[in-house]
Amino acid sequence: MLPKLKNLLFFLVFLISAVFSSSSYHPLDPLTPSELNQTQTLINNYFSSPPQNVSFHYVGLDEPEKSHVLSWQSSSRNQQIPSRRAFAIVRVNSRSREIIVNLLNNSIISDKFYNGYGYPLLNYAEQLAAGNLTLSYPPFIASIRRRNLNLKEVVCLSFTVGWYGEIKSSRVVKVMCYYLNGTVNFYMRPIEGIATTVDLDRMKIVAFRDRVVTPVPKAEGTNYRFNSSVQGLVKQVGPGFTLDGHVVRWANWELHVSFDMRAGLMISLASIYDQEKGKYRSVMYRGFISELFVPYMDLTEEWYYRTFFDVGEYGFGLSTVTLEPLKDCPENATFMDGYITSQDGTSALMPNIICIFESYAGDIMWRHTEFGIPGQEIQEVRPEVSLVVRMVAAVGNYDYIVDWEFKESGSIKVKVGLTGLLLVRGTIYTNKDQIREEVYGPILAENTIGANHDHFINFNLDLDVDGVANSFIKNKLQTVRVLGNTSPRRSYWRVNSQTAKTESDARIQLGSGTTELLVVNPNKKTRVGNFVGYRLVPGVIAGPLLSDDDYPQIRGKFTKYNMWVTPYNKAEKWVAGLYTDQSHGDDGLPIWSLRNRNIENKDIVLWYTLGFHHVPCQEDFPIMPTLSGSFELRPTNFFEHNPVLKPSQYATDSANLSESGQ
Amino acid sequence: MLPKLKNLLFFLVFLISAVFSSSSYHPLDPLTPSELNQTQTLINNYFSSPPQNVSFHYVGLDEPEKSHVLSWQSSSRNQQIPSRRAFAIVRVNSRSREIIVNLLNNSIISDKFYNGYGYPLLNYAEQLAAGNLTLSYPPFIASIRRRNLNLKEVVCLSFTVGWYGEIKSSRVVKVMCYYLNGTVNFYMRPIEGIATTVDLDRMKIVAFRDRVVTPVPKAEGTNYRFNSSVQGLVKQVGPGFTLDGHVVRWANWELHVSFDMRAGLMISLASIYDQEKGKYRSVMYRGFISELFVPYMDLTEEWYYRTFFDVGEYGFGLSTVTLEPLKDCPENATFMDGYITSQDGTSALMPNIICIFESYAGDIMWRHTEFGIPGQEIQEVRPEVSLVVRMVAAVGNYDYIVDWEFKESGSIKVKVGLTGLLLVRGTIYTNKDQIREEVYGPILAENTIGANHDHFINFNLDLDVDGVANSFIKNKLQTVRVLGNTSPRRSYWRVNSQTAKTESDARIQLGSGTTELLVVNPNKKTRVGNFVGYRLVPGVIAGPLLSDDDYPQIRGKFTKYNMWVTPYNKAEKWVAGLYTDQSHGDDGLPIWSLRNRNIENKDIVLWYTLGFHHVPCQEDFPIMPTLSGSFELRPTNFFEHNPVLKPSQYATDSANLSESGQ
Repeated sequence: MLPKLKNLLFFLVFLISAVFSSSSYHPLDPLTPSELNQTQTLINNYFSSPPQNVSFHYVGLDEPEKSHVLSWQSSSRNQQIPSRRAFAIVRVNSRSREIIVNLLNNSIISDKFYNGYGYPLLNYAEQLAAGNLTLSYPPFIASIRRRNLNLKEVVCLSFTVGWYGEIKSSRVVKVMCYYLNGTVNFYMRPIEGIATTVDLDRMKIVAFRDRVVTPVPKAEGTNYRFNSSVQGLVKQVGPGFTLDGHVVRWANWELHVSFDMRAGLMISLASIYDQEKGKYRSVMYRGFISELFVPYMDLTEEWYYRTFFDVGEYGFGLSTVTLEPLKDCPENATFMDGYITSQDGTSALMPNIICIFESYAGDIMWRHTEFGIPGQEIQEVRPEVSLVVRMVAAVGNYDYIVDWEFKESGSIKVKVGLTGLLLVRGTIYTNKDQIREEVYGPILAENTIGANHDHFINFNLDLDVDGVANSFIKNKLQTVRVLGNTSPRRSYWRVNSQTAKTESDARIQLGSGTTELLVVNPNKKTRVGNFVGYRLVPGVIAGPLLSDDDYPQIRGKFTKYNMWVTPYNKAEKWVAGLYTDQSHGDDGLPIWSLRNRNIENKDIVLWYTLGFHHVPCQEDFPIMPTLSGSFELRPTNFFEHNPVLKPSQYATDSANLSESGQ
Repeated sequence: MLPKLKNLLFFLVFLISAVFSSSSYHPLDPLTPSELNQTQTLINNYFSSPPQNVSFHYVGLDEPEKSHVLSWQSSSRNQQIPSRRAFAIVRVNSRSREIIVNLLNNSIISDKFYNGYGYPLLNYAEQLAAGNLTLSYPPFIASIRRRNLNLKEVVCLSFTVGWYGEIKSSRVVKVMCYYLNGTVNFYMRPIEGIATTVDLDRMKIVAFRDRVVTPVPKAEGTNYRFNSSVQGLVKQVGPGFTLDGHVVRWANWELHVSFDMRAGLMISLASIYDQEKGKYRSVMYRGFISELFVPYMDLTEEWYYRTFFDVGEYGFGLSTVTLEPLKDCPENATFMDGYITSQDGTSALMPNIICIFESYAGDIMWRHTEFGIPGQEIQEVRPEVSLVVRMVAAVGNYDYIVDWEFKESGSIKVKVGLTGLLLVRGTIYTNKDQIREEVYGPILAENTIGANHDHFINFNLDLDVDGVANSFIKNKLQTVRVLGNTSPRRSYWRVNSQTAKTESDARIQLGSGTTELLVVNPNKKTRVGNFVGYRLVPGVIAGPLLSDDDYPQIRGKFTKYNMWVTPYNKAEKWVAGLYTDQSHGDDGLPIWSLRNRNIENKDIVLWYTLGFHHVPCQEDFPIMPTLSGSFELRPTNFFEHNPVLKPSQYATDSANLSESGQ
């Protein structure tokens, strides 16, 4: 009787509180602590005679019907919420059950056995128990002794086991153990060769095998914590860098920022300080936008020819704009001037056409929370502050925002934002329904067609990865079929690494995402024998849709491949040729590259095209919200290990404002 | 004699200044104003007897040899810079010439005619002159009168003409004219049907044709300037939003933020205030991570089974971490708690597992600089402040940072950052050169292999674009060949729009970037007749590399397509099935979708998979710098026009901190 009375009391208390508080609910609010407790009590009572062991695996809101939520919402939310239910998955006597609780009248309204394959979410308690079971299992203890390890420094985790065609299964996990002993980063110290299988419902070890002894990797170099806690990492970023003429030094980076009336912003001699080696190491000799090809898809007599090469025809430098403090660049930005030459040869000042600033968007450089070490709370987080070098070119109607972002991790992220005004065509039509002919783009407003077009932005990237002589490597991820019964698995993928010998080997149409693009220095290896390298990680990809024999495509043939690689040649700078206006396609990268020169272990240049196909929409009218694309150059075995493990200590005394307060 | 004397004097003055200042040069510094003037003077003098008209088209640094720069750099920069030269392209007597100037001894060291195809950069003066020539050309004036336009409100621009197979060419541009008369955004008011061709070298109109009269689009709605100038757009972002229970209101957005012990963060009922319509319009009923599949590519006995489903096996909510102020989230963040249920049914507080903050990274929402209106300086820029809702799940070794970013433009950007610790395997090897067998990943440190693996993150996106009944549209960009001689062009692309009738029509493997993915409300059109819609813009793409018949792939078959669409069904929530641990692949999306249900004009759900193939590198050891992937939901004809044209005025009184100071 007592439980029932308790139940009734609880229900009365609940009813009162529900009446007084239900109006503050949103029907999609997660279950409150009191609702969760109510669910626990109801379910425990439900299984109390005879008492059964109930293991909870999931409790969450059983959502009201969508139609009810929408009707509640459209009723200005004055109605009482449509329903309030909990959905629980529990294990009782090694079977999964789905229970639905009506929280408003405190009753179980459904209880269903689940008889299919698979098991619910693991809960923490059973994972912990499985680990502890292993740690006290004599054969396991013997295995640890055999490896001369200290059992007190071993931590064990439960790994889900998947399914490999077994007809019958029980709810098991494999327990995999790791070694602390001098590090909190036990994940880097796996104790290989031992497999322990634990049945979670029975909490028993059902299989154990010690197959092979493999060295446990050393603790040295695995720690990611500071000895002292880092207090007050600033979010208010300052200038944070020094400017010595055109040379910028920030954190571990040094680079030269320049301006050219054709290319606009140019980054040169970017190198990064390697704390371990105690010196700057070169990454990129030069990077700039070599061309920006914008073909329109409108064949109207006054439009067909519009296939602009903005860099070679109008000049990206000539089109740079004076950046507006607090709007184009944040408060902490520093500005740089540039000079162009006018028709009569007179130089003209272009004030504030480049800005340089530290940026903190609230992002995280790296982090980890470690739940796995008993009695320890470990959480290490480093905010991501980066340095941005920006220019904006307004080539007629379009505005291009070009950002070179340098990260302490060694990554260079290059971002192009498209904004400004569309090139639109006047038309007789005022509504899409009137249109029965080809109009070459969507209607955006009355009498206004937004012509379809592309933007292909080619970057000339003269990488010098830790020296001038580099090789270009295509790492192709390839599926391998498993033969015979050597493994329960039937496939995996591996990396097929191909060094490009000549230019034709390095022309790549991206898309499938299964080829990694790597530039290595084949003359330098890390201590464990990897070639030092940088990887180009593509973002938005677009290739040409024009026919090969169409005139604009003959002139813009560089778009045929997202990537080309050439040996460095000072004269080969502009991807669509030096004289681009009315060019015939007989100068430029596709022509130079016909020679199919050797590019292995040479001073090489990457030509990477970032592209957009642009079908305009009404939101682009009358001015277009920024649409961005980017790619990233990421160190890949360039450093011996994560280069941002410790607080930065750089070669120069330049202010390192990404840390403060200690 | 006089010019020569002047020349000599200039040279002496220059020589003195060069001696005293050259040490402050970096060899890659752009030309200084005095160097530019020196170049002008030298070239003008060079063409002074007999006097010839010299038009400058490019002047820039003629870079020193790369080897000289590197040698200068490695000499600790104490050497004098290797050389200092200017490269100029000029037009003299309708011919292009390339001139190299030695600035150190003030001489022209090379002058070369360019006899090939194509022409140099256009300069501003000639573009302006071509426009003015057109504006004063009687037939053009007659054409403007014929259209009843006011000539004083017409502005003209020079468009480069490309090349369409002509054997002979002259340096011409086409002049295209626009109408102001009530707007500064003349680009939205093209005067169509008139083609004027100007020879730039002779500065003469060489062709004129007035083919057809088309209405000039109206000025109304095209202006992008504020009437009053906006002062002091804040960069110091504040909380900037209101939290009413779990409902967040920020700028023009309203959304419900929730937490589930399996899914973690859930966004519901996201809707955006439409200033023009004066009401909130629904965008997304629900969005959350439905599964995270991480198969490893290691067939070792203790490894082959590691093919984790982190959401369905370990729980993304169960794995969420308490976010650390100032590190995981910026200073201005607000935190939200969550509750989970333990094994015994007791609820447990998870403090601060969601944070919400305004973010300003220094980005630009939209901008334009207008050079084209004589006598006016127009520059309008809006900084991009967005709202981020974040959670972090540490599923064992890996940390996943999940950001839902809401922009005033109506865009929702969803970003996942991967950081934390790799799962590594112990090995006997200490150097790559020792390895002769398959080890399933690169060596990262002594005795440490980083196992190759994938991350497939599936998002359940129940979009309700301006209402519940939606359709999914594939906009395929397709090349069209031009037949016959109807145009000088031979091709263009157009949009082939396909509405998915049933589920099988909507399964898509992305890659080529030529299909746009659109969700529209087929029952609602904009005023000009477009269906209101939202577009999903993919970022990083990866598909499965495992064989279809491999067990992990049978269970993770949802990865086969980047996109699937289903009719809404409350029971279909978890892409790899409700009971994922040891599942057999007989529940989940690929099974439900076999029914091939009708999805046209229905309540539909998008299932989008964001993927990474991860070949580890040494920089990932012992902790991995964040690697990010994202996708964006962008309004596409959802609004009548750019929704962030004017300073925001929202339905609620909630603080709109993206504007201040007026």
